[in-house]
Amino acid sequence: MRLLVVNANTSESVTAAVAAEARRIASPGTEIVAATAAFGARVITSRAENAFAEHALLDILAAHRAGADAVLIAVSYDTGLRAARELMPMPVVGMTEAALFTASMLGGRFGLVTVGRRTLPLYRDTVAMHGLSTRLAGIRAIEGSALDIFADRAGAERAVAAEALRLVREDGADAVILAGAAMAGMVQALAQEVPAPLLDGIACGVAMAETLVRLTVEKPREGSYGAPAGRETVGLSPALARLFKG
Amino acid sequence: MRLLVVNANTSESVTAAVAAEARRIASPGTEIVAATAAFGARVITSRAENAFAEHALLDILAAHRAGADAVLIAVSYDTGLRAARELMPMPVVGMTEAALFTASMLGGRFGLVTVGRRTLPLYRDTVAMHGLSTRLAGIRAIEGSALDIFADRAGAERAVAAEALRLVREDGADAVILAGAAMAGMVQALAQEVPAPLLDGIACGVAMAETLVRLTVEKPREGSYGAPAGRETVGLSPALARLFKG
Amino acid sequence: MRLLVVNANTSESVTAAVAAEARRIASPGTEIVAATAAFGARVITSRAENAFAEHALLDILAAHRAGADAVLIAVSYDTGLRAARELMPMPVVGMTEAALFTASMLGGRFGLVTVGRRTLPLYRDTVAMHGLSTRLAGIRAIEGSALDIFADRAGAERAVAAEALRLVREDGADAVILAGAAMAGMVQALAQEVPAPLLDGIACGVAMAETLVRLTVEKPREGSYGAPAGRETVGLSPALARLFKG
Amino acid sequence: MRLLVVNANTSESVTAAVAAEARRIASPGTEIVAATAAFGARVITSRAENAFAEHALLDILAAHRAGADAVLIAVSYDTGLRAARELMPMPVVGMTEAALFTASMLGGRFGLVTVGRRTLPLYRDTVAMHGLSTRLAGIRAIEGSALDIFADRAGAERAVAAEALRLVREDGADAVILAGAAMAGMVQALAQEVPAPLLDGIACGVAMAETLVRLTVEKPREGSYGAPAGRETVGLSPALARLFKG
Amino acid sequence: MRLLVVNANTSESVTAAVAAEARRIASPGTEIVAATAAFGARVITSRAENAFAEHALLDILAAHRAGADAVLIAVSYDTGLRAARELMPMPVVGMTEAALFTASMLGGRFGLVTVGRRTLPLYRDTVAMHGLSTRLAGIRAIEGSALDIFADRAGAERAVAAEALRLVREDGADAVILAGAAMAGMVQALAQEVPAPLLDGIACGVAMAETLVRLTVEKPREGSYGAPAGRETVGLSPALARLFKG
Amino acid sequence: MRLLVVNANTSESVTAAVAAEARRIASPGTEIVAATAAFGARVITSRAENAFAEHALLDILAAHRAGADAVLIAVSYDTGLRAARELMPMPVVGMTEAALFTASMLGGRFGLVTVGRRTLPLYRDTVAMHGLSTRLAGIRAIEGSALDIFADRAGAERAVAAEALRLVREDGADAVILAGAAMAGMVQALAQEVPAPLLDGIACGVAMAETLVRLTVEKPREGSYGAPAGRETVGLSPALARLFKG
Repeated sequence: MRLLVVNANTSESVTAAVAAEARRIASPGTEIVAATAAFGARVITSRAENAFAEHALLDILAAHRAGADAVLIAVSYDTGLRAARELMPMPVVGMTEAALFTASMLGGRFGLVTVGRRTLPLYRDTVAMHGLSTRLAGIRAIEGSALDIFADRAGAERAVAAEALRLVREDGADAVILAGAAMAGMVQALAQEVPAPLLDGIACGVAMAETLVRLTVEKPREGSYGAPAGRETVGLSPALARLFKG
Repeated sequence: MRLLVVNANTSESVTAAVAAEARRIASPGTEIVAATAAFGARVITSRAENAFAEHALLDILAAHRAGADAVLIAVSYDTGLRAARELMPMPVVGMTEAALFTASMLGGRFGLVTVGRRTLPLYRDTVAMHGLSTRLAGIRAIEGSALDIFADRAGAERAVAAEALRLVREDGADAVILAGAAMAGMVQALAQEVPAPLLDGIACGVAMAETLVRLTVEKPREGSYGAPAGRETVGLSPALARLFKG
Repeated sequence: MRLLVVNANTSESVTAAVAAEARRIASPGTEIVAATAAFGARVITSRAENAFAEHALLDILAAHRAGADAVLIAVSYDTGLRAARELMPMPVVGMTEAALFTASMLGGRFGLVTVGRRTLPLYRDTVAMHGLSTRLAGIRAIEGSALDIFADRAGAERAVAAEALRLVREDGADAVILAGAAMAGMVQALAQEVPAPLLDGIACGVAMAETLVRLTVEKPREGSYGAPAGRETVGLSPALARLFKG
Repeated sequence: MRLLVVNANTSESVTAAVAAEARRIASPGTEIVAATAAFGARVITSRAENAFAEHALLDILAAHRAGADAVLIAVSYDTGLRAARELMPMPVVGMTEAALFTASMLGGRFGLVTVGRRTLPLYRDTVAMHGLSTRLAGIRAIEGSALDIFADRAGAERAVAAEALRLVREDGADAVILAGAAMAGMVQALAQEVPAPLLDGIACGVAMAETLVRLTVEKPREGSYGAPAGRETVGLSPALARLFKG
Repeated sequence: MRLLVVNANTSESVTAAVAAEARRIASPGTEIVAATAAFGARVITSRAENAFAEHALLDILAAHRAGADAVLIAVSYDTGLRAARELMPMPVVGMTEAALFTASMLGGRFGLVTVGRRTLPLYRDTVAMHGLSTRLAGIRAIEGSALDIFADRAGAERAVAAEALRLVREDGADAVILAGAAMAGMVQALAQEVPAPLLDGIACGVAMAETLVRLTVEKPREGSYGAPAGRETVGLSPALARLFKG
Repeated sequence: MRLLVVNANTSESVTAAVAAEARRIASPGTEIVAATAAFGARVITSRAENAFAEHALLDILAAHRAGADAVLIAVSYDTGLRAARELMPMPVVGMTEAALFTASMLGGRFGLVTVGRRTLPLYRDTVAMHGLSTRLAGIRAIEGSALDIFADRAGAERAVAAEALRLVREDGADAVILAGAAMAGMVQALAQEVPAPLLDGIACGVAMAETLVRLTVEKPREGSYGAPAGRETVGLSPALARLFKG
């Protein structure tokens, strides 16, 4: 199968890191095709940047969808997930959605570690969007930005481990999700430091996308997740406009 | 004061109707400036169309913000509301948000009448986004599309009145919101048919926007609704990119 | 329009302060008429005092309703709000209700600062009554009583600012409501100290009451918020008894 | 022990019926003392009538409290329950509260049968006030008023049985509460008609009040349910004012 | 009446302590018959031990049910409560359920003190099972195990009192439940130390079981709490198998 | 990998059907080992039968765990899931849990079709246990029992399709879960009849169990899902007792 991994940030380096992690976890028969947003923020850290990233995401999907059996949205806010799921004929999975459901199958409640306090409410809203607020033990942020993580990996790992431990020991998390592409790969490094399962959205997302393909689930033909058709649009990229013509 | 009314649909005719209704309700000192999305769907009826409408909405705001004291989002899904509220220095109000809070001040629970069953879940999500799900008595849809309403106004009004009555008598709604720009102006026509207050998002939205300006509320300087600044973006309109540079 | 501002406490001095604040914010055409409860607690700080204040409130309304276009309940527990809304033919707004909905239009979650820990649960119940518990970031109390605030205004302002800051920085509040008539007027003094909008129930309430009048909303003619009629009562003030005769 | 049964309606006949039912269920050592509100509605059917009934209730309690070991509030909206619980030194139980908790110990979900659609929202709010909304299978109303029940007992019983059956078979109620003093005594008559336990608030309330006395629970000495003390009031009955002086 | 008190732990000493407390609180006419699980954990502290304790509990009930008018489940997780309530013809009460409903009749919110942090989530789930999560002020654990409590009673009482105080003063609990058989009897010892009512599940459970018997509630004849009948089973004790044959 | 599929019913024929479906969906490298409960109900349809099935389930796990990389609980109530997840060192998945999370990745809300109205509340509780109540569009039951399904397959399929259609068209379900082993295999037969994805718990469960193994998630070493150890038990099977000795 072919899995289209879409990064709604405009940073090619993030896409490359995400694609590498996706290839590491992918099953032998799974081909990973990665694509990067053509416009928008380098790294999304606000609702406003997330808003046009939804457009950019649909644009990539329209341009790169040929031959794809499933889509993984590689932004930890699950940017544009509902819209893409409605629009596209193949399964679409969000990386945080995948991690949240995986965590839910490992215990009672889960926690999230994020980068920077500003995004805390965005993650709380993401958990709520998936209907899992009652299983949220807590969200804790390390100081700094994604760039700081790349600059001082060892320091960042210590900080992440410390917050993950607090989620387990103080907040009662049974599993911890490292939320954000910048933390991809930390799961292996920190597994011994944290006495509860650590999860990474990319790995969970690849596995969940493969699962949906295996189960040969049907696209809804009715209801609000049926694909829009015969819709007139203005000023979109031709590929995207064609999807709405149906 | 100057109130910028933004329509994230690309239909100038809808914008004109909305602007007229806004001018009807506006206080003497309020100037209404209306703007229409430069790209996207003629009429948004799906999550996918709503997704790029968020981008289009921020784009209009960036282009037309000069001199505006407040913003009213004139799409009944409150498209891009959170993003705009975070990004812009002046108050931003959504038309359905305004109607929901107004309805909440008139009784215990409210109902919504919409056009077409497909959008029912989108309105349910809109109510949930505002945290008011426990006050929702019900959502009922009339058959057809916005176009049908314009084609047979009298028939549409009968259908809307019938659903509004069922919301009051069967579902226990204490107020009824006519959700969707196509129903603008029906409130006056149906007031005698329905034994509970009828509300229109444009009228409520204009009044609420004026209220926020009068109260001289501050823009948050910290937290996740503080304006993003110093953010690098790619491929956005120059006006929008400048907003993120800060 | 004429706005009847009713204080269900029996302290004329509180009524005077509230009326002054209401006149400060009122639109040019709005006449403020203030009334004070004829019986009950000097300052309500318990459920028990609040219980008979509901009676006192209906009593004032019955006595002073002539010519009023709207009612603002000037007690921060929104004492008797649902009863008055059901009974009276004109719009009735609660001061905390108005502040909660205003705060909801400024960000995602709000916080409240109150006076004295004893009333914390009463405010939590007030937020719940309005269906907004999921948007409550926190409630924090300053030590002491309303009297202490009048005795040491500067000290009280420092304490309020400190709690408001903790609501923003620790609890993630995007807006902060100063709950209680004793804090009327502090919003202006503290705006620079707190990096998020500060709200005062009287100002919000006046603006919301004017809004409802402008929108010419109908009184429900059916349902549980329709006015009771033909009801026999015993031992009430003649004015109040007449309202139930209908 | 002495149980004070207080009726916040002003109908002596209702008080007599309630007292008779209370005496029927009371344990041998329990003396029932009944009291009727001195002012207010003959029969409460609105939020407005309920509001001053809270005052009337506290007034009766202040006047009749001497020697009482517990209080049962004999109005099916649990009128003034929280206020009385805070104010009085002995346990206070609401008749519907008692029925709801009893029903909860008999199955998973419960239903209520009421008289007249107008009061449906008041009962929904009563269930919510006790935190049990997730266990509510449904509320169904028979047509008419309390007076109609007395006029045609047999007809009323058939109507109540029909609604109770629908609660069990369609809504999945495991127990059914007959809410309202007018239905006191119907439980015995209808037990064979309804294939699930039927409950009556007066019987449950007497039993629960006796239970709290037996368990010798302490009055809270701190927190918001501690008794108010040293509070100045105006215009209350001397007995009630004394309670607040503390 | 005869009350069957069943301990799903396999510790006879715990059963003896529980039975003694039950006899202390029981009404004169109530005979307490106690029974201990024939298999399972000495003291349940995990979901896994709780799982087969449900079987052991049904087994005891089948063996000892003759002549019992009601059942009290004397494990603080209310082990097997729903299953037993469905299966048995007489009322079945859980000790924590009884304490939660009693606490609910004493104030707004309650707290629990438990032994050992590991069981915190089990108690949180127990509160949720009863639908009372919104009334939970907090759960706090003392260090150690049930054995430690027996080894150092005075130290344990000090620790319990300290946590109970924090529940009242920091978390706003209006009543505190001592959850766990090991704390039976502490209520009397600590009543003066804690300024809010303290509750013990055994005392509350005995009183509630007696209440349900007095009210002569019917066993559901339909619905999911009707007794199973005509069911074929394999490998159960003869007494238990007979119950399912019906 | 080796996947242990455990049926907590005592019907070997159900186990065989379930194992066949599991083998159909399993990946090439996955060996399916199936085991049947040694005691309990032929087919679980009540809380009481479910209670000792939890014991039977742990018993099978203890006896058959050697070499297993993951466990799938093949009872649609996810019987004993939490207990097994806590006790066992390898991942444990419930068949309905797996279907619920899969359905959640296909749309907004899901519905369930079950056999017989009696089990409706058990499924509602199962959905609630997983924290997904807000995503439940509805549960609908076909008449009859599992045996009826085997007796008239074509009739059962028509009935299931009709209920699934109502879930989609009336209740707004975006995906439909056929809940119950008796419906295994119907998904393929009905895919064309129902315009939304149909899901089967066994297929979803096998895929999810394989996913958790691939992700090499750690067993919690702390918290309430860490394995119990050093626990003394009485009267359990030797294999099960050994698991608690730790």
